[in-house]
Amino acid sequence: MRLSTYLLPTLRQAPSDADNISAQLMQRAGMIRKVASGIYDWLPLGLRALRRVERIVREEMDRAGAHEVSLPVIQPKELWMETGRWPVYGKELLRIKDRKNAEFCFAPTAEEVVTDLVRREVRSYRQLPLCLYQIGLKFRDEIRPRFGIMRAREFLMKDAYSFHVNDEDASKYYDVMKRAYTNIFKRCGLKFSAVEAQAGAIGGSFSHEFMVHAETGEETIVACSGCGYAANIERAETTANGDKSDFAPEEMEEVATPGKSSVEDVAKFLKMNKKRFLKTQLYMAGGKPVMALVRGDHELNEAKLSGALGGVEMHRATEAEYETIAGCAVGYAGPVNLPRFKTPEGKMEEVRILADLSTEALVNAASGANKKDTHLKGINMGRDFTAESVLDLRMTLESDPCPRCHEKKARFTKGIEVGHVFKLGTKYSESLKAEYLDVDQKAHPMVMGCYGIGVSRVVAAAIEQGHDDWGIIWPKEIAPFVVAIMCLDNDEAEVKKAADELYEQCLEAGIDAVYDDREGRPGVRFKDIDLIGIPFRVVVSKKTVADGNVEFKRRDSKDLEMWPLAEAFSRLRTML
Amino acid sequence: MRLSTYLLPTLRQAPSDADNISAQLMQRAGMIRKVASGIYDWLPLGLRALRRVERIVREEMDRAGAHEVSLPVIQPKELWMETGRWPVYGKELLRIKDRKNAEFCFAPTAEEVVTDLVRREVRSYRQLPLCLYQIGLKFRDEIRPRFGIMRAREFLMKDAYSFHVNDEDASKYYDVMKRAYTNIFKRCGLKFSAVEAQAGAIGGSFSHEFMVHAETGEETIVACSGCGYAANIERAETTANGDKSDFAPEEMEEVATPGKSSVEDVAKFLKMNKKRFLKTQLYMAGGKPVMALVRGDHELNEAKLSGALGGVEMHRATEAEYETIAGCAVGYAGPVNLPRFKTPEGKMEEVRILADLSTEALVNAASGANKKDTHLKGINMGRDFTAESVLDLRMTLESDPCPRCHEKKARFTKGIEVGHVFKLGTKYSESLKAEYLDVDQKAHPMVMGCYGIGVSRVVAAAIEQGHDDWGIIWPKEIAPFVVAIMCLDNDEAEVKKAADELYEQCLEAGIDAVYDDREGRPGVRFKDIDLIGIPFRVVVSKKTVADGNVEFKRRDSKDLEMWPLAEAFSRLRTML
Repeated sequence: MRLSTYLLPTLRQAPSDADNISAQLMQRAGMIRKVASGIYDWLPLGLRALRRVERIVREEMDRAGAHEVSLPVIQPKELWMETGRWPVYGKELLRIKDRKNAEFCFAPTAEEVVTDLVRREVRSYRQLPLCLYQIGLKFRDEIRPRFGIMRAREFLMKDAYSFHVNDEDASKYYDVMKRAYTNIFKRCGLKFSAVEAQAGAIGGSFSHEFMVHAETGEETIVACSGCGYAANIERAETTANGDKSDFAPEEMEEVATPGKSSVEDVAKFLKMNKKRFLKTQLYMAGGKPVMALVRGDHELNEAKLSGALGGVEMHRATEAEYETIAGCAVGYAGPVNLPRFKTPEGKMEEVRILADLSTEALVNAASGANKKDTHLKGINMGRDFTAESVLDLRMTLESDPCPRCHEKKARFTKGIEVGHVFKLGTKYSESLKAEYLDVDQKAHPMVMGCYGIGVSRVVAAAIEQGHDDWGIIWPKEIAPFVVAIMCLDNDEAEVKKAADELYEQCLEAGIDAVYDDREGRPGVRFKDIDLIGIPFRVVVSKKTVADGNVEFKRRDSKDLEMWPLAEAFSRLRTML
Repeated sequence: MRLSTYLLPTLRQAPSDADNISAQLMQRAGMIRKVASGIYDWLPLGLRALRRVERIVREEMDRAGAHEVSLPVIQPKELWMETGRWPVYGKELLRIKDRKNAEFCFAPTAEEVVTDLVRREVRSYRQLPLCLYQIGLKFRDEIRPRFGIMRAREFLMKDAYSFHVNDEDASKYYDVMKRAYTNIFKRCGLKFSAVEAQAGAIGGSFSHEFMVHAETGEETIVACSGCGYAANIERAETTANGDKSDFAPEEMEEVATPGKSSVEDVAKFLKMNKKRFLKTQLYMAGGKPVMALVRGDHELNEAKLSGALGGVEMHRATEAEYETIAGCAVGYAGPVNLPRFKTPEGKMEEVRILADLSTEALVNAASGANKKDTHLKGINMGRDFTAESVLDLRMTLESDPCPRCHEKKARFTKGIEVGHVFKLGTKYSESLKAEYLDVDQKAHPMVMGCYGIGVSRVVAAAIEQGHDDWGIIWPKEIAPFVVAIMCLDNDEAEVKKAADELYEQCLEAGIDAVYDDREGRPGVRFKDIDLIGIPFRVVVSKKTVADGNVEFKRRDSKDLEMWPLAEAFSRLRTML
C-alpha cells in the first residue's frame, strides 16, 4: 500500500475522551474514529489489524472442527421469551420495534438463535457433536461505554456454540476449544493466561477466561508460579486463613462505641486487631435479608455471595433496611441477637447468616450489637450465634497462599479479558427443547458449550500490551503491515527507483508492506511510522543508496542495521 | 469437508412460503433457514457461496484502488438530520432508541457516516481522490419481504463511496468502478448487463444498474442487439412514435358516450383506432393538479412523469379530485376546456398539461370532454389545447425501435438487479459540508460517487440463472465447493481408501472439495449432490474401482466419463 494515496489521518494528540492507552493510540494512529458513544468507524489501517485477528480465529475454529455460519443480528423477541432472557436481560439489550410493531433485539449473543436452528435441524445422535461459529457484529448497550473499542457498544465477536450427546463429550470438546483458543492467542503473538472463571461444583472448573497480560488491564489475575493455578480475582478461591487460637472463650460483653462505626475506628478505639472483627454486611436477596460475615481485614466478594445464594436478585441493604432489620445503622449490625424479620406474607423468620471460611478460627471476636453506638466483644461462633453455612466468600489478598498448592507463590497481575469458554450444560437446550434421539429413539436435551472471543477487543489488548512512548508496537502476526519501506528522497531518481523496486518485490512475494512514498519532512514521517507500530522498517535514502545500503530497524529495538541494498529483499523474505 | 460431520439439512420440499426458485432451492439445499420475516440464518453451505462472492468483490475493489473500512451499522439520528433523510426516509428505516433515549437507525446505506468521516479527515485536494468501501450488514424494513434472501430485511451489501475534486474526476472514477463491477460479475461466472438506470440530463447517463439475466427476474431490461443500448424498462427512453398524418384538421365535435369510460370501450363505440386517443391521467403533484397525456395504445411511465415534475410528492387523483378538477368521473376527463382550479391560497390557475412525444403526431384525436358521458372527437393539439411540454412520458413497448439507433432490434429480457453505480454529485457533500481546499486554499464541496452490490443477492441471482429440475447449477467460481467426491461403498476397504486418498490430495492441493462419505442409499445421496449443485462430481464405487476407474460428471451435463483412478487427481487439478 502506498501511503501517498492511503487514508492515514495520524494525530499528535488523542481526543480528550480517549480514556486508555489503546483508545488514544488507535485514534492517533488513524485506526478508528468515534461516531457516537461506544460506536466507531474502523479506518483502513485499523481494519487491516482486525482482519488479521479475524483470519487467525477463523483458521483455528475450522481446525477445531467448527462450522462457520452467519446468524442474524436482528432477532425476534419470541425466542428470547422462550429462554426467559427477554425480561431479565436489562437495558444492555438493545430492543427494537419494526414497522409492524413486532419486537426484536440486536443480538448481544446468539444462544437463542443457534439453539433454535439446531433444534429444527438436528434430530439424531448421529448428527452430534456439532459446533457452529460466526464472526460478526454484536451490540451491547453499555451504560458507560469506555476505553475506545475495548468496551464499545457495537463490536466484532466470534461466538461458537457446540452441541453434544452428553456431558463427557461436551467436556472433551471444551478441551479442544481451550487448545484452539491457546493457539489463537499464541498465533496473535500475545502474552496471555487461561484463568479459571468460576469455581467448579463437581469435577473442577467449567469456565475459563483468556486474559491478555497488560499493566493497564481492568481485571486482576491471581496466578501461582508454583502449581500453575490462575484465576480472575473475582472468582479466585480462598482458603481458611489463620488457625484457631487456643485462647479460652471469654464472656460476651457490650461496649459503648459512640460514633465509631467502621472496623478501623472501632478496632483502634477498643485496641483490638482488625483481624479479630466479624465484618458484617446485610443484603436483600430475593426480598429477604441475608447477613454476610468476613474477617475485619478481609473484603466481601459479592460475586461469591451471589453464587452462594443461587444468583437471585440481590442488593446491599439501604440505611432504612438496616434500621428495619437490625434496628440500628450500618456499622452497628452484627450476627448476635439479630431480631427475626417479618416476611411480606407476615411470617417471622430468622435472618440467614453466611460466614467466610476465615471467620471460623476467630475466638472472642468483636462485632456490632444491633444497637446504636454499641459493639460486642467476646463473640464465639456456634456459642453466640449460628451461621447457616461457612464458605468461601471473600476477595483474595496478595498475601494469601495459592489456594491449590498452598505455597506462597500466588501473585496478582493485570489482564484484559479477550476470550471466554464455557460449559453451558442444558440451560438453553432444555428451555428451547433442543433434543436428540439416542440409539433407542429416546429423547434427551443436548449438552451445550459456548465459546466467545472479542475480536475487536484483541486488537486493543495487543496495543495495551505492546506500546511505548512513541506509539504502538505490533506483534508481527497481527500488524496491519509487517514492513514499512520509507523513501526519504522522492526527487532522487536512483533512490526512488531502489525504494520502488523493493516495494514491488515485497508485493509480488506476498509480503504485507506499506510504502511511505509521501512528501514531507522525514521527522514527521518517522514519527508516523513509529506511531502506527509497523514491526520492521527499511529506510532508503540518498545517503544509504550512496553506500549501496538500506537502513533496517525493528520497531521494538533501537538498533539500526545497514543492509546491502542488493540483499534487502532476500533478507526480508527470509525473516518473514 | 466431510459431509458425514457437516450440517447439510437438505429438504425434499421447500417451505410453502418460499416464493421463488432461489428461495426454494436455498432452503432445500440447506443453505439458509428463515428466522423471521426477511431474516435468515446462513448455514455452512450457504455461507461458503456468500464468502466466495465476497472475496471476488473485495479483490476487485482493492484493485480499483478503493480502501476497505468498517462503518457502524447503528448510526446516530443527528447525521441523518443533517442530510434531511431522517424525516423523509419512511418506514424502511429501522429506527432505534438506546437506553438513554438517544435515537439511532440501523443503516440501510452509509452516505451520512462516510461523508462525516471524510469531512473530518480530508482537507486538501492532495488527499483526493479517495474511495472507501465496506462489506457489511444492512437492514431495510421492507413492507413485504419476499424471495428469500433476495428481498430480505437483513442482508449483506458492499457499499463504496468516492470523493473527488471535480465532476470530471468523478466521471473518470465512475468508469473505473463500472469496469470493476464488470470484472466482478464476470468472475462470478454470471451472464449480466450493465443497463442505464436514469436518462442523463447533459453528457449522457450517470447511473447504471448491473442486472443478472434470469427469466424469473423482477426487472425488465430493454436491450438492443444493434447498438448495445440497454436500460431498465422503468427508465428506457422512447421516441416519438408515428409521423404526423396529412389528414386535414376537422371541427371538434362532442359525442355522447354513455357508460363508456375506458379507451377500449370508447374506441369500439366510436369505431376509432385506440392509437387516435389522448389517454388522460390526472395527478396531484405538490398539492396541484397535473394532467398527463399519452397515446391511447401507450402506458404512462410514472417514474418519467415524476422526474419531469422534479420528484415532488405525487399521487394519482382520487375520484373526488377528478370531480373537483375536471368536473367529471375518471374516463371523461380530457385536455380541452379544462377548467381552471383554485389553489389553497385562493388563486385561479391553469392545470398543467404534460404530453408524451407520441401524442404530437395525432390529428383529429379523441379524448374526454370533462363532462359526464361525453367525449370529444377532432381534437388537435395547439389549436384546441396547449401542452406545457411534450416529452418522453411513456413505457417502452416491445414493438418500439431502439431509442438510440432506431433499428428494430430492442428486445425485452428479464433481469435481477445486483449492483448499482451512481454519480451522486454534491448532494451529500453540500448538506454535510464535506469540503476540500484547492491549490489556492479555496473551499469546494467534494464531488461524490456511490457504488453498491447486493452481495447476498448475487448468490440468489446466480441460482435464478443456474438451476434445473434437480437443483442448483453453480458457476464454479462461486460454488461452495467445486468438486464432490462420492464414495459409494464405505465398507469396502479398497474403495474407501481410493476415495479417501483422492479427497486428501484435493485438500492438499487447495481444491475446494466436499467428500460425501455418508452412509445411506446412493440414490438419496446423488439427489443431494445434484441439489446442492457442485460443478464436478467424482464417484468412486466397487464397480469403478474394479475397473481401475472413477466416474466423472459435470453438473451441467448428462455425460458420464470414466477416468482412470490413477489419473483422477491430476485431471481434476488440470481442470481447475
